Amino acid sequence: MTDFPQGFTLHVGNMGVKDDTNDLMLLGCIPQTTIAGVFTQSRFAGPNIEICRHNVASGTARAVAVVSKNANVATGETGHADAKELTELVAATVDADPTEIIVGSTGVIGVRYPMDKIRTHFTQLNAPFSEQSAELAARAIMTTDTHPKVASASAGSATIVGIAKGVGMIEPDMATMIAIITTDAEISSDRLDETFRRVVQHTFNALSVDTDTSTSDMAIVLASGQAGPVDENQFETALSEVCLNLTRQLAADGEGAETLIVVNVTSARDNEQARRVAKAIVNSPLVKTAVHGCDPNWGRVAMAIGKCNDVDIDEHNVAIQFGTQEVYPTPATPQTLTELETYLAGDEVHINADLGISDGTFTAYGCDLTDGYVRINADYTT
Amino acid sequence: MTDFPQGFTLHVGNMGVKDDTNDLMLLGCIPQTTIAGVFTQSRFAGPNIEICRHNVASGTARAVAVVSKNANVATGETGHADAKELTELVAATVDADPTEIIVGSTGVIGVRYPMDKIRTHFTQLNAPFSEQSAELAARAIMTTDTHPKVASASAGSATIVGIAKGVGMIEPDMATMIAIITTDAEISSDRLDETFRRVVQHTFNALSVDTDTSTSDMAIVLASGQAGPVDENQFETALSEVCLNLTRQLAADGEGAETLIVVNVTSARDNEQARRVAKAIVNSPLVKTAVHGCDPNWGRVAMAIGKCNDVDIDEHNVAIQFGTQEVYPTPATPQTLTELETYLAGDEVHINADLGISDGTFTAYGCDLTDGYVRINADYTT
Repeated sequence: MTDFPQGFTLHVGNMGVKDDTNDLMLLGCIPQTTIAGVFTQSRFAGPNIEICRHNVASGTARAVAVVSKNANVATGETGHADAKELTELVAATVDADPTEIIVGSTGVIGVRYPMDKIRTHFTQLNAPFSEQSAELAARAIMTTDTHPKVASASAGSATIVGIAKGVGMIEPDMATMIAIITTDAEISSDRLDETFRRVVQHTFNALSVDTDTSTSDMAIVLASGQAGPVDENQFETALSEVCLNLTRQLAADGEGAETLIVVNVTSARDNEQARRVAKAIVNSPLVKTAVHGCDPNWGRVAMAIGKCNDVDIDEHNVAIQFGTQEVYPTPATPQTLTELETYLAGDEVHINADLGISDGTFTAYGCDLTDGYVRINADYTT
Repeated sequence: MTDFPQGFTLHVGNMGVKDDTNDLMLLGCIPQTTIAGVFTQSRFAGPNIEICRHNVASGTARAVAVVSKNANVATGETGHADAKELTELVAATVDADPTEIIVGSTGVIGVRYPMDKIRTHFTQLNAPFSEQSAELAARAIMTTDTHPKVASASAGSATIVGIAKGVGMIEPDMATMIAIITTDAEISSDRLDETFRRVVQHTFNALSVDTDTSTSDMAIVLASGQAGPVDENQFETALSEVCLNLTRQLAADGEGAETLIVVNVTSARDNEQARRVAKAIVNSPLVKTAVHGCDPNWGRVAMAIGKCNDVDIDEHNVAIQFGTQEVYPTPATPQTLTELETYLAGDEVHINADLGISDGTFTAYGCDLTDGYVRINADYTT
């Protein structure tokens, strides 16, 4: 079991949002806990996201609440009022100002919170809370995730513990990614923000399950300072490790996914081109179904590179590998193809594309496209 | 049965590229037939595409050959030499210069043509050819299409007849769209090119089955001039009608598709924004699976609009309809939702999104995402 670092206390409970499983995760933080966060760019972002954006800007936070089973998105003025009241309820419980509260939400769109039930639940609550288990918290924010997602790492005397949910569905609505990283390291909010944004670029932003973007995505990091200052490089490395670990867990648990796909693009013009090409490959339905079918069909990888339509990509300079086996331009032998079918049947498949231009690189994380994805999103209707 | 217009003769045959079905479609044109065409932008475009681009530029053509069951893509220098030899064989048969020949190809990637078999087939061939049936031609260029695709219209004394294939698969490789439109109207190649590019924007370029772009896509129009000059507006209207008809047939016959999805975006900032939003909706795996599951889940349409991330899209000004039924912001009643489930079970579903900004519009054509898509592309391995 992994506990949250010093300075954090946890409550999980059932407010009756949908059924009798836990639907509230409430993480209390000591005063002066610094915070940084990144949120969905969606134009249909929920009111909770709007509140979070505003409150994160202050640089400190006293509590994070995540409601699962209801996204509170596209619920109009009343939905906005409900989100505001929720932050006030949390603030009263931890004796803080509503501007120090972060509220995430994930689940069905277009349905209001059951505010009576939520109010009743909060009347029984007192901070500090009694729980510490990150697994318990990770489980409380799950929707159709098949298992809780937790990762941890150390940086000097400090520890970093992260939880995440997604990419799951509820009453077949939108997938939502929520990631909450905690640490007892002492770090200013400006420095935390700067570090977190760099880390997010090659971790959560390198993740794609189905190209759809949630209205409720959020990733935040909270630092209680209880372990004192730590070496900044060491901290960034440890933070990267935790975020990458969670990213891989999210990709591998994508809807219906059976295989984690890691696409590594090298020798691109720059990192931005490498990112676009890696995303094109990892998002291609034809590449995703080829991996699902254990078919070493490199033509589909070539197609995905080709459709990026960059004039400096020249098919004569491109090389493609499955794992460590080159398949283009040197063709695989029949013997090698048989070995590749076995490789593609594994839990994790690496596709490498070298563009032969310059030194840009990017690694993207995704999953195969299966009948399970279609069944989850089509057959299980409201 | 639809015959090609005056000035065109047809040969179809089996060269033994893969099995004993027809794999050669050869359309002969009289001298002075004008041509215009658009081709894939892929950086892995096949050598046939390179030859076509060059030959279309002259503005006239004497024959179009389409080889099915083999794309002749990523086959290196020998593949380029094979494509060149194919144009020479066609040119000799119709007594023309190789620069007057258009060669399309669709099928497996990375495999060479069986040149011996192709040479043998051409020794028996003489122009003019004896066939006229557009259905016969459409069938000869099919790969895993479930039926041949033909459309026709009139413009004054001239007729326009088009055939198309795709979006099918062969030995699970790439989908390829090939469309060939013929007319006996008399029209200069410059005027034909200009008209065709305008028409393609709102027809073939409005089509998306799975966001993947083939290495072999081509759409061409040939005008024999036999029916004399026609009114230009009338011609463009008729050409639009044929191309739109083929586009709808291609979308409805997308891999595994059971439902044609027509997404109409209105009141956008401009037509370009409308196009991006319409494509985002029609390509969203969550929207596609919702339609497949007959689930009137408008939250997914809102999500797809939201992820376009344009600052002038405001959720308070957006309206969403399934068919003629508004579902956002006015919510559907339980009665209406039941009716919508029946509507979504039909062969053709219309999704309308009004962005409430200005007067930009675009209509995109796609299909639902089904277990059939996954099975075709994953389970039927090489």
